[in-house]
Amino acid sequence: MALSVEKTSSGREYKVKDLSQADFGRLEIELAEVEMPGLMACRAEFGPSKPFAGARISGSLHMTIQTAVLIETLTALGAEVRWCSCNIFSTQDHAAAAIARDSAAVFAWKGETLEEYWWCTERCLDWGEGGGPDLIVDDGGDATLLIHEGVKAEEEYEKSGKIPDPESTDNAEFKIVLTIIRDGLKSDPKRYRKMKERLVGVSEETTTGVKRLYQMQETGTLLFPAINVNDSVTKSKFDNLYGCRHSLPDGLMRATDVMIAGKVAVVCGYGDVGKGCAAALKQAGARVIVTEIDPICALQALMEGLQVLTLEDVVSDADIFVTTTGNKDIIMVDHMRKMKNNAIVCNIGHFDNEIDMHGLETYPGVKRITIKPQTDRWVFPETKTGIIVLAEGRLMNLGCATGHPSFVMSCSFTNQVIAQLELWNERSTGKYEKKVYVLPKHLDEKVAALHLGKLGARLTKLTKSQADYISVPVEGPYKPAHYRY
Amino acid sequence: MALSVEKTSSGREYKVKDLSQADFGRLEIELAEVEMPGLMACRAEFGPSKPFAGARISGSLHMTIQTAVLIETLTALGAEVRWCSCNIFSTQDHAAAAIARDSAAVFAWKGETLEEYWWCTERCLDWGEGGGPDLIVDDGGDATLLIHEGVKAEEEYEKSGKIPDPESTDNAEFKIVLTIIRDGLKSDPKRYRKMKERLVGVSEETTTGVKRLYQMQETGTLLFPAINVNDSVTKSKFDNLYGCRHSLPDGLMRATDVMIAGKVAVVCGYGDVGKGCAAALKQAGARVIVTEIDPICALQALMEGLQVLTLEDVVSDADIFVTTTGNKDIIMVDHMRKMKNNAIVCNIGHFDNEIDMHGLETYPGVKRITIKPQTDRWVFPETKTGIIVLAEGRLMNLGCATGHPSFVMSCSFTNQVIAQLELWNERSTGKYEKKVYVLPKHLDEKVAALHLGKLGARLTKLTKSQADYISVPVEGPYKPAHYRY
Amino acid sequence: MALSVEKTSSGREYKVKDLSQADFGRLEIELAEVEMPGLMACRAEFGPSKPFAGARISGSLHMTIQTAVLIETLTALGAEVRWCSCNIFSTQDHAAAAIARDSAAVFAWKGETLEEYWWCTERCLDWGEGGGPDLIVDDGGDATLLIHEGVKAEEEYEKSGKIPDPESTDNAEFKIVLTIIRDGLKSDPKRYRKMKERLVGVSEETTTGVKRLYQMQETGTLLFPAINVNDSVTKSKFDNLYGCRHSLPDGLMRATDVMIAGKVAVVCGYGDVGKGCAAALKQAGARVIVTEIDPICALQALMEGLQVLTLEDVVSDADIFVTTTGNKDIIMVDHMRKMKNNAIVCNIGHFDNEIDMHGLETYPGVKRITIKPQTDRWVFPETKTGIIVLAEGRLMNLGCATGHPSFVMSCSFTNQVIAQLELWNERSTGKYEKKVYVLPKHLDEKVAALHLGKLGARLTKLTKSQADYISVPVEGPYKPAHYRY
Amino acid sequence: MALSVEKTSSGREYKVKDLSQADFGRLEIELAEVEMPGLMACRAEFGPSKPFAGARISGSLHMTIQTAVLIETLTALGAEVRWCSCNIFSTQDHAAAAIARDSAAVFAWKGETLEEYWWCTERCLDWGEGGGPDLIVDDGGDATLLIHEGVKAEEEYEKSGKIPDPESTDNAEFKIVLTIIRDGLKSDPKRYRKMKERLVGVSEETTTGVKRLYQMQETGTLLFPAINVNDSVTKSKFDNLYGCRHSLPDGLMRATDVMIAGKVAVVCGYGDVGKGCAAALKQAGARVIVTEIDPICALQALMEGLQVLTLEDVVSDADIFVTTTGNKDIIMVDHMRKMKNNAIVCNIGHFDNEIDMHGLETYPGVKRITIKPQTDRWVFPETKTGIIVLAEGRLMNLGCATGHPSFVMSCSFTNQVIAQLELWNERSTGKYEKKVYVLPKHLDEKVAALHLGKLGARLTKLTKSQADYISVPVEGPYKPAHYRY
Repeated sequence: MALSVEKTSSGREYKVKDLSQADFGRLEIELAEVEMPGLMACRAEFGPSKPFAGARISGSLHMTIQTAVLIETLTALGAEVRWCSCNIFSTQDHAAAAIARDSAAVFAWKGETLEEYWWCTERCLDWGEGGGPDLIVDDGGDATLLIHEGVKAEEEYEKSGKIPDPESTDNAEFKIVLTIIRDGLKSDPKRYRKMKERLVGVSEETTTGVKRLYQMQETGTLLFPAINVNDSVTKSKFDNLYGCRHSLPDGLMRATDVMIAGKVAVVCGYGDVGKGCAAALKQAGARVIVTEIDPICALQALMEGLQVLTLEDVVSDADIFVTTTGNKDIIMVDHMRKMKNNAIVCNIGHFDNEIDMHGLETYPGVKRITIKPQTDRWVFPETKTGIIVLAEGRLMNLGCATGHPSFVMSCSFTNQVIAQLELWNERSTGKYEKKVYVLPKHLDEKVAALHLGKLGARLTKLTKSQADYISVPVEGPYKPAHYRY
Repeated sequence: MALSVEKTSSGREYKVKDLSQADFGRLEIELAEVEMPGLMACRAEFGPSKPFAGARISGSLHMTIQTAVLIETLTALGAEVRWCSCNIFSTQDHAAAAIARDSAAVFAWKGETLEEYWWCTERCLDWGEGGGPDLIVDDGGDATLLIHEGVKAEEEYEKSGKIPDPESTDNAEFKIVLTIIRDGLKSDPKRYRKMKERLVGVSEETTTGVKRLYQMQETGTLLFPAINVNDSVTKSKFDNLYGCRHSLPDGLMRATDVMIAGKVAVVCGYGDVGKGCAAALKQAGARVIVTEIDPICALQALMEGLQVLTLEDVVSDADIFVTTTGNKDIIMVDHMRKMKNNAIVCNIGHFDNEIDMHGLETYPGVKRITIKPQTDRWVFPETKTGIIVLAEGRLMNLGCATGHPSFVMSCSFTNQVIAQLELWNERSTGKYEKKVYVLPKHLDEKVAALHLGKLGARLTKLTKSQADYISVPVEGPYKPAHYRY
Repeated sequence: MALSVEKTSSGREYKVKDLSQADFGRLEIELAEVEMPGLMACRAEFGPSKPFAGARISGSLHMTIQTAVLIETLTALGAEVRWCSCNIFSTQDHAAAAIARDSAAVFAWKGETLEEYWWCTERCLDWGEGGGPDLIVDDGGDATLLIHEGVKAEEEYEKSGKIPDPESTDNAEFKIVLTIIRDGLKSDPKRYRKMKERLVGVSEETTTGVKRLYQMQETGTLLFPAINVNDSVTKSKFDNLYGCRHSLPDGLMRATDVMIAGKVAVVCGYGDVGKGCAAALKQAGARVIVTEIDPICALQALMEGLQVLTLEDVVSDADIFVTTTGNKDIIMVDHMRKMKNNAIVCNIGHFDNEIDMHGLETYPGVKRITIKPQTDRWVFPETKTGIIVLAEGRLMNLGCATGHPSFVMSCSFTNQVIAQLELWNERSTGKYEKKVYVLPKHLDEKVAALHLGKLGARLTKLTKSQADYISVPVEGPYKPAHYRY
Repeated sequence: MALSVEKTSSGREYKVKDLSQADFGRLEIELAEVEMPGLMACRAEFGPSKPFAGARISGSLHMTIQTAVLIETLTALGAEVRWCSCNIFSTQDHAAAAIARDSAAVFAWKGETLEEYWWCTERCLDWGEGGGPDLIVDDGGDATLLIHEGVKAEEEYEKSGKIPDPESTDNAEFKIVLTIIRDGLKSDPKRYRKMKERLVGVSEETTTGVKRLYQMQETGTLLFPAINVNDSVTKSKFDNLYGCRHSLPDGLMRATDVMIAGKVAVVCGYGDVGKGCAAALKQAGARVIVTEIDPICALQALMEGLQVLTLEDVVSDADIFVTTTGNKDIIMVDHMRKMKNNAIVCNIGHFDNEIDMHGLETYPGVKRITIKPQTDRWVFPETKTGIIVLAEGRLMNLGCATGHPSFVMSCSFTNQVIAQLELWNERSTGKYEKKVYVLPKHLDEKVAALHLGKLGARLTKLTKSQADYISVPVEGPYKPAHYRY
């Protein structure tokens, strides 16, 4: 795919797989709207007053149907939007087409190369003259990373004339980042600093990105305010847990059609994502074994009847392996060599380094047989047995299926809208410093409340006397900050 | 698609969507073989002696990857095979391509019209000169029906000269059947009777087909022996139950991506299929309501915590409706009109008459919006609200997903192979009359036993003294005929 | 406890633990009536016409609160009743007291010796002059056994003068049976034959008793008609399954207060009882391992995510062992020696020979520490570790808790009432020969229907056209005889 | 029961139901020790150095078998201990007897009156000359309350001569508290202030007590440091959740023997306790409806397939009502009047004011029929229908069963031991001010780790490189403070 920006008849920039899929995308977007009551409520409540009028929002977040509803909520509130995906396999091309045609500048397609991926990210941040976006919606932190690395390089260059050297790193992806920044330096050595100046803040979607933000906060290198959307209860305890409970079996089924019942499944990590995965596999009739480093999570697994062992204990007995840790080097090529024939290996946690894809790809004599896109069988030369790796080690629910369903994404994305509104509304008040914030509990509760009606729920109301008895306001928030749900 | 038979280079007839998908089909067939230990054990045990040498087998059964492994087991045992699908949407085109290229005559593609469907069925039974097949593998009984109707028409024609009149029926599909028979009569007025003469017997896969067979047995019109594979324990208590537990959510997810958690789902019918569906929906976090006519099944549902109501009680509250009854007229257009916007309506039980598709299609002013193949939104003119109908009311797990997974189909299909072997081996002994038979329990137990090793199970062995104590042979069978599992 | 019959002021015979508990028993009986809609419906439908007028019914069935409601249903229909328990630990003394005081002759208390047990059984069958009962309600077949053995001995005695020799058997319990018969022979050498003459038939409650009946039918030694109540769907698929799912954890908790979550539990046998037990343990958070001889049941366990291994594989790893097989010699003393300290061993299947109690009791140096009645810790001399055996190896749900709850027993016992009515009404028609019968399906469906209203269920009604389509009557029965539910 | 202190032969004070049950208690304590690895590990690690030498510990916490193991862990570490129960029904008399005989001064029996209850609390705090305890283990905060109220009254008395007036309150229980303080004032007007002086701190077990502590902290009235044990993850996410999942059905079964399957159950509140209760009821086959004030918890319930309604919506349809809110006035007498006959009403959350016991008791014409202790049927005069109230509205798992099982209590109580050690070791360092603290995460993780071995779990170890990657120490703690598990 030639990397040149295209334009709609109205002049909006885009680069998508096939604009003719826009009608199909539109139909699915309309279905999704019915399932996303939180976002639709935001449109109803805030749409008329256009609070984002004048705001430029750049988003780096899986370009799916659900994200399309988010984008069109932002535009309904007055924002101008540019978007890219945060994963090379996660774009739904019909969603991208509909948004590109109708609503926002989109640079995303399913099956990008890494070079294409970062080109898209750059485009998403590139608002032409006058610097970058006012606000960023980030997922995993790549847009944030690019700006931080860009600023760092520009300052170094200004100071010492030193230019970023892609060869200074072994990491294939970081090589590309450095190349982009290096090339950018030549044309505009203040580009990322201008961006930083304009930027009001970022709202970050996921655990991995949040972790990076806290690290930057700790080292004092965070360049703008950040809202941690991941740790809203209505995000991490819903999207991570119930989203994965839905999308893990969905991805497994679409990729492999394998019968889950009767199988032995290993779930590496028993955080919210792991809990959702283990529940789904157990309910589908698998026998689930958990690996954990944290004794508390391990004890939770045991209380649910799951066995807790190390990967080494079970590597040659299990049929399905799922990584959910947010860490690296979980399933190494030496593990994979010992697995049963046609064992399925996949990642739903984090980057593709949870699984040792590099070790696998470079294993002497290994043979890769692509069954279909995102489903590869890798055959080891000694044993002639193969394992099946999904989505090349990247998030399998997005690579092999369509990610999380609309309803649970409505919870997450309503947090995003609220976070973006908060950053924008407070842009001149100094309320937010260059730190990481979570949304206050009453907004978290509001997000939940917006999703109850769709499911036919009826809340009980506290009396004043009951509220006093437990020392909370009648209207909430109802729980102390440390409450764990 | 022009209805003309094509031929492979080796001269084998076929009609499939795209022969170039054969390589992809082959890869998935190879994966499936690893998941189908019962069929592979049949190949190992019986393959060398070619017991089917000289036998012609015609099969009318969803032309999926799993069926491909069945077909190649039959050919590995020496049979010559012709195949068609028993459902217009259930063919996996890459499976059909691989079989057509490599192993058997196939007439099947995803998305046949009804005319095409019956043309394929006719082709499947057409072995050229010398009459029809020796054996039939049937699913739903359409191949069996065609022969019975053909024979009836030929006899009537011989007796009275009367020719079948397609206009004599309102049923669109039966019109086509009569047309085919009428047209055939002209060219060969003994065609179906010759087929009947040659036929050794049929093995029938599913509840609906079995019901037809018992009716024919009762009225004395059954023309050849039949083995009821459906009521092998290792079929009905596995395929129907665990197969649907897997494939219902699979179909829902692929067709609609809807979040199942939190939804209200109505399962019409609580037989084996309904039990599997209700279990899957409950486990995915839906609130499940069952409708039933049978008080025993209703009481079972209640014991599992499911509510039992009538469709009228819940029609306007539920989000997902699934028919599993094997009966007709379950969800009528008047029900559909009262449903919530975007309620999902689908059938996993039987023919497309469980849902009143005719009533829907002919509803004045109704508008059909095809989201994607097999996923239609039907909008009612009065309310402007729409419902989403899957697979045009036909089996949604086959229309919207890929049917049941290999492992559970291995149970069903091993029963098929054993039934076919039994009919063939006893073809001259008179053991089987023109009646419906079930396989003896020791064969049922054998099918199960062939599937245990793959799942790492270890059986306990009875001692002689224990066997005597409970009055069973040490090697089984272990249960009385009436045992319900 | 001195074994002499006592009499109420009205002259009714009894022997119970403490008649003063009758008021407490009455209160619980009244609660149970609300939970037993099937029995109460029988009282309403048949009570006024007193169909059992003149009938003597002897029952040998756990003398619990639920059985009390059964007994008073029989008396409400006009019967005269004598009762004993069919298990030395299963009597609820307050239930026995209430019935003894108010309704029927009862001989039963919790914690009988084996001698006392058989004395009670004899009393239950002893209707004084004029022979025995007209009808027997049996559970496990002990009353039936006593009559059959009695008749055999009398005939042998008449023929050869030979008297039963208790020393001819190693079986401690059968020694007692022979003693009773021997002693009876002296006073009345025609006693059991007179009983047999009068007897119209027996209705048998449980798998074990039914197995004995079929054996007698096969060898032609069955002396009177028998109705197999166990194999009514509304019995075996409810009482055995859902009853045990309730009462297994109940018994474990009352006996040991052990946390089930996190434990490894072995369920020996995966029939209806085993399925209920495994479900209960899994749901409570245990990791469940099943042992099975039958490959079909084993495959069912695997489909539910349960591991299937042999007892030897897991004996030293598991925390809880439950036998549900209906067979003998399942857990031997050599297994018990290898178990973890304080492993719990119990039986919910059948007689106390599922667990090798004899081997345990006679193990050299073993020490028994009674924690509380029915909960013993047995310490092995070599290891000083102990295992905890419940209810001395007898049915733990009756020994350690109160058996199955009223609602599910209402299903079973409504079958009993209907079976007794059937035998009694047809006593002169010759409908029932000396064979074993199951109730017809329409009665089975009726039993279920009587239990739906209490749970708020609403059945769907077939239309005539639908009924014709599936070839069943509109009013049922709805399923073929071989249907497995 | 006459309220006089008794003494063992060694001179230790006590007041229990029956000292002769000590042997039985000892046997059950020994069983419990095997199930409480955390406490036994504390004995092994800290026992030899007797860190509590010289410390007086007063405990007000359900005097069960599990608490006995806690007490003997404290004494094994060198403490002197006095104990009372924190609930009038929760004492297990054999546990109290064993501890009284062997280890500590105990004042507790099952079925105390409220006067007796507070007499016991007073005894527990009364260490004779030299003031009160050094440390308090509290559950619900009654011991802490008595001291705070005592100090307040003494200060008021010293200031104004005013004596507490029991008639100044409507609350029956608080009347008794004021009476005790008033009577104490006469003999020693500095009693509670001396206590306060000596006191190093309190560790509080449960949500209700913790809430009181935070209120006192907020108003600045807290008199000594407090450690909030409840909010250790290994307490609230285990004891509250998995403990109740175990003990709710246990209590229901022991009290009523009711079949849970098929019933409609209402769980008021979906916090940790409610989650455990709802899970248990659902798994047992009930249809569960949740009432909630908090939209987040409500949405969690929906995601698990539970219906969320108000009590008014379902009051006349449900069979079982369980309060878990920690609030008051949840089920009022007006609700109870509308319930179905024999609906079961119980509380597992908090005090007996969750259920309007006062309204029920004073309802005109209501009739109370005690089925057995802690199980009462209350019949309304208008309808003659009755409801069944468990444990007089108090904690039903402790009143009707034996509370939570040992294993999960070992988690909670290991936190207690660690908290007590922390307070004692830091008694002179000023580390703890008059505030409420939670234990640091590494101790929480340690508690979990101590419980893994017993369940056969094997933890995975982080590599240094992995630990760096996620920015945690190799040895933990592994999660940020806000992590919700």
